[in-house]
Amino acid sequence: MSKEHATREENYAQWYNDIVIKADLAENSAVRGCMVIKPYGFAIWEKMQAALDKMFKDTGHVNAYFPMFIPKSFLSKEAAHVEGFAKECAVITHYRLKNDPQGNGVVVDPEARLEEELIVRPTSETIIWNTYKGWIQSYRDLPILVNQWANVVRWEMRTRLFLRTAEFLWQEGHTAHASKEEAEEEARRMLDVYTDFAENYMAMPVLRGVKTENERFAGAEDTYCIEAMMQDGKALQAGTSHFLGQNFARAFDVKFTSREGRQELVWATSWGVSTRLMGALVMTHSDDKGLVIPPKLAPFQVVIVPIYKSEAEFEAVCTSGKKIKSALENVGIRVKLDDRDTHKPGYKFAEHEFRGVPLRIAIGPRDLENGTVEVARRDTLEKFSFQQTDLATKLQHLLDQIQENLFTKALQFRETHTFKADTLEEFTRILDEQGGFVYAHWDGTVETEQKIKEMTKATIRCIPLNNPMEQGNCILTGKPSSQRVVFARAY
Amino acid sequence: MSKEHATREENYAQWYNDIVIKADLAENSAVRGCMVIKPYGFAIWEKMQAALDKMFKDTGHVNAYFPMFIPKSFLSKEAAHVEGFAKECAVITHYRLKNDPQGNGVVVDPEARLEEELIVRPTSETIIWNTYKGWIQSYRDLPILVNQWANVVRWEMRTRLFLRTAEFLWQEGHTAHASKEEAEEEARRMLDVYTDFAENYMAMPVLRGVKTENERFAGAEDTYCIEAMMQDGKALQAGTSHFLGQNFARAFDVKFTSREGRQELVWATSWGVSTRLMGALVMTHSDDKGLVIPPKLAPFQVVIVPIYKSEAEFEAVCTSGKKIKSALENVGIRVKLDDRDTHKPGYKFAEHEFRGVPLRIAIGPRDLENGTVEVARRDTLEKFSFQQTDLATKLQHLLDQIQENLFTKALQFRETHTFKADTLEEFTRILDEQGGFVYAHWDGTVETEQKIKEMTKATIRCIPLNNPMEQGNCILTGKPSSQRVVFARAY
Repeated sequence: MSKEHATREENYAQWYNDIVIKADLAENSAVRGCMVIKPYGFAIWEKMQAALDKMFKDTGHVNAYFPMFIPKSFLSKEAAHVEGFAKECAVITHYRLKNDPQGNGVVVDPEARLEEELIVRPTSETIIWNTYKGWIQSYRDLPILVNQWANVVRWEMRTRLFLRTAEFLWQEGHTAHASKEEAEEEARRMLDVYTDFAENYMAMPVLRGVKTENERFAGAEDTYCIEAMMQDGKALQAGTSHFLGQNFARAFDVKFTSREGRQELVWATSWGVSTRLMGALVMTHSDDKGLVIPPKLAPFQVVIVPIYKSEAEFEAVCTSGKKIKSALENVGIRVKLDDRDTHKPGYKFAEHEFRGVPLRIAIGPRDLENGTVEVARRDTLEKFSFQQTDLATKLQHLLDQIQENLFTKALQFRETHTFKADTLEEFTRILDEQGGFVYAHWDGTVETEQKIKEMTKATIRCIPLNNPMEQGNCILTGKPSSQRVVFARAY
Repeated sequence: MSKEHATREENYAQWYNDIVIKADLAENSAVRGCMVIKPYGFAIWEKMQAALDKMFKDTGHVNAYFPMFIPKSFLSKEAAHVEGFAKECAVITHYRLKNDPQGNGVVVDPEARLEEELIVRPTSETIIWNTYKGWIQSYRDLPILVNQWANVVRWEMRTRLFLRTAEFLWQEGHTAHASKEEAEEEARRMLDVYTDFAENYMAMPVLRGVKTENERFAGAEDTYCIEAMMQDGKALQAGTSHFLGQNFARAFDVKFTSREGRQELVWATSWGVSTRLMGALVMTHSDDKGLVIPPKLAPFQVVIVPIYKSEAEFEAVCTSGKKIKSALENVGIRVKLDDRDTHKPGYKFAEHEFRGVPLRIAIGPRDLENGTVEVARRDTLEKFSFQQTDLATKLQHLLDQIQENLFTKALQFRETHTFKADTLEEFTRILDEQGGFVYAHWDGTVETEQKIKEMTKATIRCIPLNNPMEQGNCILTGKPSSQRVVFARAY
């Protein structure tokens, strides 16, 4: 394992990139802005998917799949949506290549031009609501509680692995309801699901709130969000859940006959989280020694490394390692026995540390004599010598502790990086010197928010749910304000 | 449930389409050739995915994700591959839309033309081998055993739900090996995995064999396949596993240092199955009463329908239904209690029958008195009255029987539709009158195979593995042949 990686202090952006690349999570591909998610990174994403998918199903949702192509004209149907989404898109104009007459490989066949261009979905509200029109006639057809796991494309100019890529993976829920109340409840329910996932699986504390008009999803009436704080004090939007009102139903003419026999427009929500969460995971817990993964999402929670000199010792410790592995697996712990004979123990230690495996067990000949193992915690770097008796129980307990400790540490970080500012000067100073979340008064206008953004690069991350009311004055205009909102510089 | 659907006898193609549409598996979308996979269809696909994914992992594979866009020039790098794949593709030429100056929605921004066009992957050998070049230096980096679940696009002119769609979902395994033997072994191992899945999950018997040169994957040295027989006697290729030799390693210059210190080209395989399997599933087991799903892949294996007149009866049978549901779920049976009060029992019976739920339980007030339930089997349409004692065990037993019965029935169908032909006349008559698989002698040339295809629409589905040697004469040319090969008309 190469030691050549940046620390957070030296170069935070480089530190992040080094972890993603050197822990084998992802890499840039030959296609501008598109990443390859490598097996180790994908294994973490699969754990995320499995946990979220179960939560979605437990709340009554089912999965489906809609086309990844959207007719260009669909994007213009919802006025706000076209402004927000129709611009930086991958556009399909042709459906055939042919041999180059000059013999240089293949060229686009000019005969094969599409009548109407297709867009690779940047999000699927339009194609899905066009489909729902055929599914919904009566209140009996509602609610529709559908989710899809899919790839989407937004042609970003500046990309960063996981955080902002042209193609990314996500899930998008799209629900249809007979009443406004039910749709609003659904949007908030999914915010709860995302919060639960972020805090209890990713060990990442999140602020829950609603976006200002400025930051709202294109086509939404309300955008709920969870906002996390990264170790450089910047905010990262980790998930959003939108109450879409009747906007898409109106755009695609989706009506239903109510219980009372009236024709009404359907109410909608949509909600999504993406592979961006992988970036959030990395930046919430990792340290200068590499990746740190919360046990619930770790592909391997425990790695066993044999320590040996002779081949006979290798055989003996591996035999013991296999027994330990199956004892741990019996209680549901995910274990890897690293019995490669092509690499030395020291190399393996460094590799698994950098890749964030929560617990490392080393077993050597002396351990065999004493019935012990050496256990190292990735989060605190503590080492213990454990008797092998009841090892599974002890390790399960340690894994629970690590999961909890990571959350607590991240929460403490957020708390020590959360401030109040009452003047623009104080506000700017905090952002420049410490970063973090700044609670400040704002006059409620789009113009003021934009001006503050231009001056300080900070945006309103959200108006927290259950925000305490407090009289004050906008830090920019001095106009009266009834509550503080949360500002931060953001990813 | 509408009775308006075709029978196999009346119109086989319409029967298939009616089942897919009316059992809510999939539907056509607003985008030509692309389908919407509806929740019920997707739930079956998820069961397929889960079973296959486990089999892949049990054989040492890991998942990853590669970009869905491929630079146009990549497709030309492998000579055979460009011929087979580069033609009917979705081509991205632009990356931005802009507001139409005439005010008609959005138009493609001519300023935002890509320097090199991108192709939506029709299959990923090229982008993946371009990536593997960076992953492989030494024999220590091998083997690479990677799979991805992804969407792919092949711009088909005539599409049919699941069987042939422009966009479809699939998995594609791409492995890299240090030796020819290891790669060949891998290609055959995955054929075994596919066979196991087809026969033991889909209850669909398959012929295992190798393709002729004519039918081989573009870029492969050997294409292994599993071929199933549909109820119209046509063959459906259900999965392929390719030994790619060093073709892609050569095209993308992927070499490794062997144990002996030599620079060598890497050996490759790729293998895939797709949502086409959904079509195969429908056409293998379904009947004139609708879909039939093997229990192992059924989203719900048992549906419980309450029979009642009064509201009090409804309450009572639902209470009993819930108890039965949880007793069955305790042994791992997937159960739906259909307690909708918006639909009559008769409607529900018809609906679940059409949707292929393996077992239906009806409970009415008399059952409550007698401690019984009525159980109906979807495959044989038999009905039983069961005491509720040990119901879970009895139903599990029935589910096993259904799974087995479906396989046996399909196997018998294949056996009664498998023939030998020794003359072209006999060959053509069998295909025209009965369809099915025809074992016949062939002289081993591409020309003869193509001529037979033009004359009879039949192709060589495969040369079966472990095919018995037998001297004979080609049905077209009379030239000597050492074995029979399997011909059929195919999807």
